[in-house]
Amino acid sequence: MTAASLTDRSRACDLDAADPLAGFRDRFAPLEPGLIYLDGNSLGMLPAATAQRLAEVIRQEWGTGLIRSWAHWADLPGQAGDLLGEHLLGAAPGQVVVGDSTTVNLYKLACAALDARPGRPVLVTDDDNFPTDRYVLGGIAARSGGQLRLIRADIDQGIRPDDVRAAIGPETALVCLSHVAYRSGALADMAAITRLAHDAGALVLWDLCHSAGSVPVDLDGCGADLAVGCTYKYLNAGPGAPAFLYVRRDLQDQLTQPIQGWFSQQDQFSMGPRYEPVPGIARFTTGTPNIPGTAAVQEGTRLLAEAGIHALRDKGIRLTSYLIELADAWLAPLGCTLASPRDAARRGSHVCLCYPEAGQVSAALTRAGVIGDFRTPDRLRLGPAPITTRFTDVWDALDTLRTILETKAYADIPAAP
Amino acid sequence: MTAASLTDRSRACDLDAADPLAGFRDRFAPLEPGLIYLDGNSLGMLPAATAQRLAEVIRQEWGTGLIRSWAHWADLPGQAGDLLGEHLLGAAPGQVVVGDSTTVNLYKLACAALDARPGRPVLVTDDDNFPTDRYVLGGIAARSGGQLRLIRADIDQGIRPDDVRAAIGPETALVCLSHVAYRSGALADMAAITRLAHDAGALVLWDLCHSAGSVPVDLDGCGADLAVGCTYKYLNAGPGAPAFLYVRRDLQDQLTQPIQGWFSQQDQFSMGPRYEPVPGIARFTTGTPNIPGTAAVQEGTRLLAEAGIHALRDKGIRLTSYLIELADAWLAPLGCTLASPRDAARRGSHVCLCYPEAGQVSAALTRAGVIGDFRTPDRLRLGPAPITTRFTDVWDALDTLRTILETKAYADIPAAP
Repeated sequence: MTAASLTDRSRACDLDAADPLAGFRDRFAPLEPGLIYLDGNSLGMLPAATAQRLAEVIRQEWGTGLIRSWAHWADLPGQAGDLLGEHLLGAAPGQVVVGDSTTVNLYKLACAALDARPGRPVLVTDDDNFPTDRYVLGGIAARSGGQLRLIRADIDQGIRPDDVRAAIGPETALVCLSHVAYRSGALADMAAITRLAHDAGALVLWDLCHSAGSVPVDLDGCGADLAVGCTYKYLNAGPGAPAFLYVRRDLQDQLTQPIQGWFSQQDQFSMGPRYEPVPGIARFTTGTPNIPGTAAVQEGTRLLAEAGIHALRDKGIRLTSYLIELADAWLAPLGCTLASPRDAARRGSHVCLCYPEAGQVSAALTRAGVIGDFRTPDRLRLGPAPITTRFTDVWDALDTLRTILETKAYADIPAAP
Repeated sequence: MTAASLTDRSRACDLDAADPLAGFRDRFAPLEPGLIYLDGNSLGMLPAATAQRLAEVIRQEWGTGLIRSWAHWADLPGQAGDLLGEHLLGAAPGQVVVGDSTTVNLYKLACAALDARPGRPVLVTDDDNFPTDRYVLGGIAARSGGQLRLIRADIDQGIRPDDVRAAIGPETALVCLSHVAYRSGALADMAAITRLAHDAGALVLWDLCHSAGSVPVDLDGCGADLAVGCTYKYLNAGPGAPAFLYVRRDLQDQLTQPIQGWFSQQDQFSMGPRYEPVPGIARFTTGTPNIPGTAAVQEGTRLLAEAGIHALRDKGIRLTSYLIELADAWLAPLGCTLASPRDAARRGSHVCLCYPEAGQVSAALTRAGVIGDFRTPDRLRLGPAPITTRFTDVWDALDTLRTILETKAYADIPAAP
């Protein structure tokens, strides 16, 4: 294959023609004609089945069923959690539940972990972890008289097991890291890092926001203790849909969460005088669950399960590798360089490019009908969601980006303050 | 008016004919033919405008707008909060925000209050407060080395200012009470109790779950410090719709919440190293807000605002007074007695009746097409929502109940274990 054919659009067409997942794109609400959406890792597209299910939940289950629908709604958070666990998280039933936000779930589980490791005051994360993780852990450390230790992360290559080994010790209660880094897409070695944390006597909490639905996760296999993640990215459950949390079965009865809500109470409607948490994963729930949002998590998960996480991962690798090939060929000569791991085994399903005026370029891309993300300080984040993105989308997006950089078609856009 | 005419169905028809709010019933998804719904205080009915708005949010804003819709979604929690504040809570703009659940909001605000009153380790509530309130406060007290003091409540008449006066002192950090009691519907004197708490140097946190949308609330006028409430009851925002919280403006910068999420961060997308909470009510938010749910809160609030909270309160009083009249005439002779304040000024919009086999009777009522609630230990809770319930619904429900009691048509239903 010559260099010319490598960057020829016909190659993208061939890849689409051979894509076993190509048909899934039609299972989503159509994009505006001409729009290229490389931001499914911020907000995933709307599955047609989800629109249908939500209409049923709202009009039939709520509108007509009313309070009687709680007879089946009550089980929904656990059912959606089990579905996620089985198909996407490598978790046996009874360990995952859907509810609250990633932020609140992080808080609950990190507090529980700290309580479970008395005499160990240190929480460990990395200085490039997603803000809500750092802020939540910092708040917990400050309130408990503990300490948040920040591993210095390579913002392009992510966290390596050696970085973690150097940062933990007998004072560490919890290691909390993102499985896939929100900016670079760097994929952490869950098995190795979990082992290191356990060797130090610490618990580990994985943030799966950018990995659930994009890379296979094997929580049980890795012996992970705790995990949280959102559902509005690759799981396509909609804006502000409820998050999920995982607590390994043998830990569930040892941990106590700080927000003692009535949905985690044994024999909830006896309204008893004392808080007695229910056994099992429901003890980590809090208040009344968001029912339509939980139904949307089920539908999104079903769709990904139908595609199969290994097929999605395979396509994700091919999409991002193709994106990187085109970026190397077209954009690197223009000063726009890769800011993600080059080794496909070390990255999730999104890619960052580095360019000094990335903020303006991102706005110019949007104006040209290509939606990605700007991320500080000078990164352009492009997320081809395996279930909806075509290889021709990647080609068209990078071709548009090349033109914008060549013609400086972003120069009229004011730089962010 | 003779005793006969008092209980005649034609009187209910006359009351419906004269009801200025009668037309609002048609603004909701219709009930199954023959169904009588007296459980709007558990899950409010579906407004037609909400079904329409949710379809737009899902299909247009999410499905087509995708990530671009965050440009207006970001303001939604504050906008919905301001709307609630203006029309239903007596709160000037910038003090109410929609998000999380009642449970999580209670936790955040009670922790913040305890932190703001160093040297005062005691949280005060009543032993009949809604379970999630008692459990959440108990958990906070236990984790902080503080103490939860329970006022002994009269489960039919609710909490009186004198009960509170006797329970608080210089060690009290926070008084947390329900404005309308979940079981009896007893309405607490918010102004007097807030004054007492302030006189003792304590903060006060009002749970408005059963009052928002059913009785006028005057948070600013009462000088209340903090409040929380749900939106799936009288606000008709749907199952698990997000809750709201109120923090009085001058307190906002003095309080720090424990869950330091990225939505409460100043300059959120700078992803900065340190948590620096935004000024204003948004500092009490946490993670990504539930957008469809928040839109539903807006729609539900608009509908109530159109009806007017004073008109709703007036109808609520007339509905519950009528219910009590019929219960006195028909049910008291059968051993089913009032378990709510008889004085309309002392109760919200629902009524409890006491009957030894209340659980079985509640199930028999449901079987007969009348939906209310059983509440422990022996209470039948009937909630005529002013915006949707007709006087004939009350008559028909109590007539059905009378027949069930007279014929013991519940005897075949097993008692709860």
